[in-house]
Amino acid sequence: MYPELEVDPELTERATKVRLLSTQNDAKVPSGANSAEKVAKRAPQPKWKRALLRHVPVFQWLPGYNMEWGIDDLITGITLGLTIIPESIACALLAGLPARYGLCSAFIGPLIYLIFGSIDKVIIGPTSLVALVSVQFTVNRPIEFAFLLTFLSGVVQIIMGALRVGFIFEFISMPVIKAFSSATAILVIESQIKVLLGIKYLVPGLISSVSTLSSRIGEANMADLIMGTCAILLERVARCEKRSKALRVCCRYLATSRNTLIVFIAGIVSYIWLGYRETVPYSLSSNAISSLPNFTVPSLSIETPERSFSFWQILQELNVGIIVIPIVGILTNISIGKLTPKGLVDTNHELLTVGLCNMFGSCVQAMPSSGAFTRYAISTACGLKTPMANLYLGIIVLLALSYLSPYFNYIPEATLAAILICSIFTLLDFKLPLRLWRESKRDFGIWLLCFCVCVLFGVEVGLFVSIVVTALHLLFLWARPEILVRIQEMDDMQYISVVPGNGIYFPAINHLRALVLKACTRADFKISVVIDGHKITGLDYTAAQGISKLSSDLCRQSDASSSILLILYRFPEHLQHLIDVTDNLVFCASEAKVKEFLTQESLRNGHISLNAHIRASIDLGYKIDVE
Amino acid sequence: MYPELEVDPELTERATKVRLLSTQNDAKVPSGANSAEKVAKRAPQPKWKRALLRHVPVFQWLPGYNMEWGIDDLITGITLGLTIIPESIACALLAGLPARYGLCSAFIGPLIYLIFGSIDKVIIGPTSLVALVSVQFTVNRPIEFAFLLTFLSGVVQIIMGALRVGFIFEFISMPVIKAFSSATAILVIESQIKVLLGIKYLVPGLISSVSTLSSRIGEANMADLIMGTCAILLERVARCEKRSKALRVCCRYLATSRNTLIVFIAGIVSYIWLGYRETVPYSLSSNAISSLPNFTVPSLSIETPERSFSFWQILQELNVGIIVIPIVGILTNISIGKLTPKGLVDTNHELLTVGLCNMFGSCVQAMPSSGAFTRYAISTACGLKTPMANLYLGIIVLLALSYLSPYFNYIPEATLAAILICSIFTLLDFKLPLRLWRESKRDFGIWLLCFCVCVLFGVEVGLFVSIVVTALHLLFLWARPEILVRIQEMDDMQYISVVPGNGIYFPAINHLRALVLKACTRADFKISVVIDGHKITGLDYTAAQGISKLSSDLCRQSDASSSILLILYRFPEHLQHLIDVTDNLVFCASEAKVKEFLTQESLRNGHISLNAHIRASIDLGYKIDVE
Repeated sequence: MYPELEVDPELTERATKVRLLSTQNDAKVPSGANSAEKVAKRAPQPKWKRALLRHVPVFQWLPGYNMEWGIDDLITGITLGLTIIPESIACALLAGLPARYGLCSAFIGPLIYLIFGSIDKVIIGPTSLVALVSVQFTVNRPIEFAFLLTFLSGVVQIIMGALRVGFIFEFISMPVIKAFSSATAILVIESQIKVLLGIKYLVPGLISSVSTLSSRIGEANMADLIMGTCAILLERVARCEKRSKALRVCCRYLATSRNTLIVFIAGIVSYIWLGYRETVPYSLSSNAISSLPNFTVPSLSIETPERSFSFWQILQELNVGIIVIPIVGILTNISIGKLTPKGLVDTNHELLTVGLCNMFGSCVQAMPSSGAFTRYAISTACGLKTPMANLYLGIIVLLALSYLSPYFNYIPEATLAAILICSIFTLLDFKLPLRLWRESKRDFGIWLLCFCVCVLFGVEVGLFVSIVVTALHLLFLWARPEILVRIQEMDDMQYISVVPGNGIYFPAINHLRALVLKACTRADFKISVVIDGHKITGLDYTAAQGISKLSSDLCRQSDASSSILLILYRFPEHLQHLIDVTDNLVFCASEAKVKEFLTQESLRNGHISLNAHIRASIDLGYKIDVE
Repeated sequence: MYPELEVDPELTERATKVRLLSTQNDAKVPSGANSAEKVAKRAPQPKWKRALLRHVPVFQWLPGYNMEWGIDDLITGITLGLTIIPESIACALLAGLPARYGLCSAFIGPLIYLIFGSIDKVIIGPTSLVALVSVQFTVNRPIEFAFLLTFLSGVVQIIMGALRVGFIFEFISMPVIKAFSSATAILVIESQIKVLLGIKYLVPGLISSVSTLSSRIGEANMADLIMGTCAILLERVARCEKRSKALRVCCRYLATSRNTLIVFIAGIVSYIWLGYRETVPYSLSSNAISSLPNFTVPSLSIETPERSFSFWQILQELNVGIIVIPIVGILTNISIGKLTPKGLVDTNHELLTVGLCNMFGSCVQAMPSSGAFTRYAISTACGLKTPMANLYLGIIVLLALSYLSPYFNYIPEATLAAILICSIFTLLDFKLPLRLWRESKRDFGIWLLCFCVCVLFGVEVGLFVSIVVTALHLLFLWARPEILVRIQEMDDMQYISVVPGNGIYFPAINHLRALVLKACTRADFKISVVIDGHKITGLDYTAAQGISKLSSDLCRQSDASSSILLILYRFPEHLQHLIDVTDNLVFCASEAKVKEFLTQESLRNGHISLNAHIRASIDLGYKIDVE
């Protein structure tokens, strides 16, 4: 039914001359194609080795690792490290967690992805998208809920990967992903604007949050706003896109490490200020503890001074979170994977890998993690060669966690908000809906639906609703396929030509019958019906019975003496046995045969003379059936 | 996108000569085609009149009603009346209601269907299927729940009809309907066997019911069993199918009114018995009150001595019942409609009509009603001509309700069980799964799934699960459409031919890309790719972007100097604008153009000599592009 790759047997021989790659290498070209090409072209490998290479991609590129790649990876790793540190802290604050838990997520993910990761440019770590979604399930709850959510997300991802249900992600269309990302960006920006203004409140939902903000705008703290605005301006300037050639290299590193630079400057300002005064007029991030996290398997029940939760209670509290977080987490990775040269993502492998990252992450008190578009952009700009950059990145984050944590207390919250706002801007894409509006109204509708529902009712609701709506549309396509019904002529003999555009399955059969009967009614049940099945790829029992039924409909409608002939032309042979053959139903494989049947019918109904019939029989070479 | 009926403009003129029916008559041929043909062929009618004829089908056949039809309808009506009386009582008992409520349903439904019904041979009344499903929602609750369930089912059906969502019933495939019917038959038979044995208990679920029955089989009452067995034997004998011609007419009426005959005989036996003794050794049906029901709009809240229920509480108690009962009720009507000559059912109209029947039914304390296959069989056998038979049927039931009710107390329960078992036997169909097993394993799988889940977990669960599974399969067809990838040759030039079998929508695009890239890898990215889109009927933005992406995949894979050409051959023109044109992506409408591009590519890559190219250019008449 679903041929994997059918190579025409006749041509296979001739084709071998152009097949330079041996077939055993085609099982899986490593996705880090640029780095792994040399490895792939070696001698045939035993099966276990190929499986190992596929499941543990580190073996694909590690044997061929060289100095040149090493330098590129080192530079990328350091740059990424300097970016991920402030970003992780900001994400942790967005998720309602102390700064250090963001950093915990930022070192364990990359180290695991280094070994199992199949998409070079995915850098695992906290993201504002996942933070935004997860905060809904952990807000106002003990901090252990966050780690347990990480753990359960990992478990769910691993289960999904093991069950190989990755193909369900193919049911998320691009307009949905884009609308979802844009809506997330809007929500993150909205949530950070209040931080930028130094106003502190916690209100669920965009509308109530905006109304709260507007009513409390008078409480805005100028110092916070100034810090934030300066950070945003600095961020914009540091991008320095159009500069002279001489400064380009310098600029590139400035641009890619601008986040760290901004945080560093802001930290210095706070440090100096605190040297002279007792407090700063703006909010600082807090709760930083200088120590490496302990590696402890998370407990499945939570005990707090106020209340204790059993595992079952935790599941009830986290609710759909343990399904939504894994899905949202993996979505970004798949989207990034589609941008990389190879372009084909093994979703199941990715689910397993990210699942591992989250499971191990929860052991070091990490928040749920995934890849991020901002980090993808940086690793592309720095020329990342292999996932080895993850190692250097992990080391830098670990160093920061060990030695720099006390200094995180000097970072102004507004600066972190500014960094988050700037980084999430890349996800805002309003060119796509404009294009969709012009070119495909239906896709635009899906975009709009997803965007509105995400913004108004939460991203997970929006994602769910849009997936259901797009799936219903696909189902509807089976119920109302394109069917072309026309009255056509062949040698002056008229017939009703019916061309179904798709496979005919049960939801479509009544529609088909209605169309044919309508056309027959117009023609007063006088001319034959030819259903051209050359586009039909599938047929089920219900539909086949419907076609048989159609032939008897045609019988009953006209008077008994002249029933209409139903000619099934070019129907795939393997589907013909499903259709019950009746008196007025025939299969035809060739046009000549159709002509023959039409001629016989016309003669029988007296539409053409016997002479014409005999002439036709000589032309077509068939024997006249004398009754 | 979904052409209703596209008639080739060129041929329309020629076609008019065979169009005898004027176009204004084609809007809707009344489904009672045999009775309404004369009406339909009259002069053109104003729009309001056509709408009236469509929505109130009684006007289609009433003006042409004649004596001949009247006699046939009278005979059918009386026969149906004699059948429906015992059947209704049995169904009421099955639904856990006193006998008279079955009869209440059996007169109001037909009288309303007489006016609005569009399928001649549907006779509305209680059915064992609906009774079996509804008893789950009303058992152990005040009797008013049953009437309110009827009312709410009617409301839901009218809402569904008004919203024109009838097309969702097309997503129920024939194997599902058949498995559902067979499972219902099994469940009804199982539930009646205990009545036949005179054992009284109420256990939900087939398995626990069977185990209870087997453990209490010792309590079986011989008298009940004898009454039941006699009734079944009599029913079998009275069918008298293969008799001499002389007795045929006599036999026909005997066969069609056999149920009444059996009940009559059993009642006489009880009457005589009770004349001599104080009690009969078997169970009798009870609670019969001799009076016509009051016409009262059902109250939306229920007050009983023990407890009072608000409308909201009732909704919660009835739960999914108010969705399941309307769907199950309408299913039989649609199935019967498909068996009638015209074969096309206006599901929305049917929803409205049955909804009305139920709404009015609840005003006379009726249980939920629908058409039934047993009554369809009788009306076919008796030669029903128009829905007028419903009138005679209704009168007979009303007479029975007024004058015969006290005598219902003489009917043995085992006799009614026997009648129900015999009537439900027609729904048992095990030939279909055998045929499906041979011809379509997938349809067999669906049948088996639906049957097993219906029997083990309840018919409504089975129906739901099977509809979801068949819908998921249809969705899967969009994710993995048939795509034929082969290496082909044209004038000694090789190319990779890709023929997608369906519309390409977003779930399929990664599969298509993976197949093409796999084929390209085998051919070492040396030969062009031709995607033949002649079978493609639809394309969305995501898929279009995927095709553009594919062309850049082909670019990146090979070295920059020789990127592979991606030729999109015979793509529908209205879909082309969605695809971004890149350097190595071209559209072709004709084979000559494909050949031209392939030749140019082969020359550029040095696969053919310049001489051959010039020769080809002369053959094909194109200008050589000198760079």
